[in-house]
Amino acid sequence: MQQDTHRLRVVIVGAGFAGLWAARALAGRTCDVLVVDKNNYHTFLPLLYQVAAAELESEQIAYPVRGIFRGADNVSFAMAQVTGLDRENRVLHTDSLPIPYDRLIVAPGSVTNFFGVPGADEHAFRLKSLEQAILLRNHIMGCFERAALSKSPAEQRRLLTFTVVGGGPTGVEYAGALAELIRGPLAKDFPPLIAGQARVVLFEAMDGILFGFPDLLRTEALIALRRKGVQVFLGAQVAEVAAAHVLLKDGSNFLTSTVAWTAGVKAHPLAAQLGLPCAPNGKILVDEHMRVRGMPEVLAAGDACQIDGQPPLPMIAPVAIQAGRHAARTVLREMKGKKPKRFTYFDKGSMATIGRGAAVVRFCGRNYTGFFAWAMWLVVHLLYLVGFRNRLLVLINWAWDYLLFERAVRLILPREWLLNKSALDPSSTPPPRTEG
Amino acid sequence: MQQDTHRLRVVIVGAGFAGLWAARALAGRTCDVLVVDKNNYHTFLPLLYQVAAAELESEQIAYPVRGIFRGADNVSFAMAQVTGLDRENRVLHTDSLPIPYDRLIVAPGSVTNFFGVPGADEHAFRLKSLEQAILLRNHIMGCFERAALSKSPAEQRRLLTFTVVGGGPTGVEYAGALAELIRGPLAKDFPPLIAGQARVVLFEAMDGILFGFPDLLRTEALIALRRKGVQVFLGAQVAEVAAAHVLLKDGSNFLTSTVAWTAGVKAHPLAAQLGLPCAPNGKILVDEHMRVRGMPEVLAAGDACQIDGQPPLPMIAPVAIQAGRHAARTVLREMKGKKPKRFTYFDKGSMATIGRGAAVVRFCGRNYTGFFAWAMWLVVHLLYLVGFRNRLLVLINWAWDYLLFERAVRLILPREWLLNKSALDPSSTPPPRTEG
Repeated sequence: MQQDTHRLRVVIVGAGFAGLWAARALAGRTCDVLVVDKNNYHTFLPLLYQVAAAELESEQIAYPVRGIFRGADNVSFAMAQVTGLDRENRVLHTDSLPIPYDRLIVAPGSVTNFFGVPGADEHAFRLKSLEQAILLRNHIMGCFERAALSKSPAEQRRLLTFTVVGGGPTGVEYAGALAELIRGPLAKDFPPLIAGQARVVLFEAMDGILFGFPDLLRTEALIALRRKGVQVFLGAQVAEVAAAHVLLKDGSNFLTSTVAWTAGVKAHPLAAQLGLPCAPNGKILVDEHMRVRGMPEVLAAGDACQIDGQPPLPMIAPVAIQAGRHAARTVLREMKGKKPKRFTYFDKGSMATIGRGAAVVRFCGRNYTGFFAWAMWLVVHLLYLVGFRNRLLVLINWAWDYLLFERAVRLILPREWLLNKSALDPSSTPPPRTEG
Repeated sequence: MQQDTHRLRVVIVGAGFAGLWAARALAGRTCDVLVVDKNNYHTFLPLLYQVAAAELESEQIAYPVRGIFRGADNVSFAMAQVTGLDRENRVLHTDSLPIPYDRLIVAPGSVTNFFGVPGADEHAFRLKSLEQAILLRNHIMGCFERAALSKSPAEQRRLLTFTVVGGGPTGVEYAGALAELIRGPLAKDFPPLIAGQARVVLFEAMDGILFGFPDLLRTEALIALRRKGVQVFLGAQVAEVAAAHVLLKDGSNFLTSTVAWTAGVKAHPLAAQLGLPCAPNGKILVDEHMRVRGMPEVLAAGDACQIDGQPPLPMIAPVAIQAGRHAARTVLREMKGKKPKRFTYFDKGSMATIGRGAAVVRFCGRNYTGFFAWAMWLVVHLLYLVGFRNRLLVLINWAWDYLLFERAVRLILPREWLLNKSALDPSSTPPPRTEG
């Protein structure tokens, strides 16, 4: 937080992909950058599902923001929650100190979208933050422990029926990882009569998974997923989620304690709370330079924004990275008195993995499947994973899992975050300060 | 949970060192063993302080109990909290199903002992479980973030004064690790004016640290600890702990938000709750075969027991391991109709590390200090750390820290466990299910 009045002060809200890459583009330039986030770390969300599948440790896909910008003297960090915006005085309000800015880049990201399905908000598990992923992992391990203690086959079956809603990349990857966890390490940990009852069910409302991928890859992925033991229900629209079941629109009812919701995301509510012009979907409307409509000093990037007059871009990391970088470049060009450039998304392709040694990849107009696609997936994710040490540890974990069909992180920790507790009983859990 | 009535059913309460090694000694023998613990993992407590010092990931010192006994068909596990004992019917009551036994080995371990110091129970941090270690790590990182946002040097100083009570091995090791964390990675993460205010203070009531170690090693350790930047106060008895200060009996008062209490442990309260005969210190009284006085079918081992007529043994991992193994052997000899043997503790020595490259070791009657002692410490801890994969990851983390003067796990996660919240405000924190 340097106090040089001659330097432009750029404040970035959010240390996700958009915010982080905006800050990176501004690092070392003649401006002061302050990144604000409620967490002191960046989360590598594309691998979050692996934390929820007990494959990676939570610390391995998180990296402290301060650590990322150690080499950049002009970038600092504040751990704070944004509460409001005073446009007139160019001040950002937080739960801590107010933060003045000359340019503001808003990149709060997205949250789970339940599309108003009754009970989902209350009972379904989300996969949008590390805390949520740990909670889901604890819950799944806890279901197995409870099933092992139960004498009722019906209750065991309910506890061991794990449902995933949404057949997009996250849902497909998570269902695949979960099936491998259950068929591999947990089958060795638990007695056969318990483990044999476990199943993973994936619900997709449309008539195929991985919407947006080439047809060939969609078919390949479906076959691979079913080969892993995932029960895929297509054309399956969820009508209701409850503590002990999930009901489809066609009337079928699944008794389950676990509904992992990956069916959609929407702009973070902060986008609307700041009083910026928004589209009906809650996204901040920006021009082609990522500047908020009518506000040259406020920019936005990532999942929470949309270019006015254009269809919304996919809410994925590559778009956020490019948009965040572009927002920073708009600020830089303006500083130099140059006209900003128009943003166009360069689509390198898309990929999804279906567990060990299987993936589908669309890259530069070509389609890849099988082991080679999986290797591509692995390299790309390692390259983008922030921090060399994390890359190394993740690679070791993956190699371990791959060679030994093993999962390392089968822990219920923190124990207070166990089972459906928070869903069944909305009263909060006690902190672990006391002993017992 | 086999149902063969001809086999002796041994139930072990606790998956700490005593319980785990008892189960290991019974694995593969002609009896059915059930290990009961409230957590589904074993915690390698000797390295817990490294989790609280952001050095190791919590998952690296925990190992799922089921995973440990995969190869042993006669050992099973139940995740449950023990609530009572029905000696007449030989049934253990839990928060889940009642568990019948033929032989019971009670090994619940120990909890923090505050010796009745006012405010300590409420405001001091414990270091006896993974949850507590994560809470303390989050708190320390949170103090730094809060100090970075504060404009008051007095508040910054209070937030960045970290006190450790107790100069035993845990206190010494934690103070050393904390000083290295602050002088190394955090000094790089935070502006110099913030990081420069941080200090670690160690209070020891006696006139030297590491009571019980040879004098030479005690002096060496004190010098090494002070060289690391720890302010060591000897003859410093804590009179009161509060949310914002710690008061000594001599009247000196330290403004601090962080009091890590390592000054003592006592038997787990479960020992007394089960209605077994206990010494005034709360420890279960056993005979020289680890059998509870007057109860041939109930045995005890580890921190929560004491041999009748003998002075209590140190409450450390090697004692627990040997006693747990001995309790199992008593059961095995009895099964074979042999007379049980007497337990004698074989003291291999003791060791404590004072951070990077410094340790004191007493081994087979000889004393070692400096780098060689540190290497010994490292090898011993790696050897006892359960699970090859954990060993590998811990070694990588340590090598990383050692070579780059770095700490990997500087995360505030779960964010809800932040700062002194739970101490300042005993109302519990909300679970992370919802988004914001």
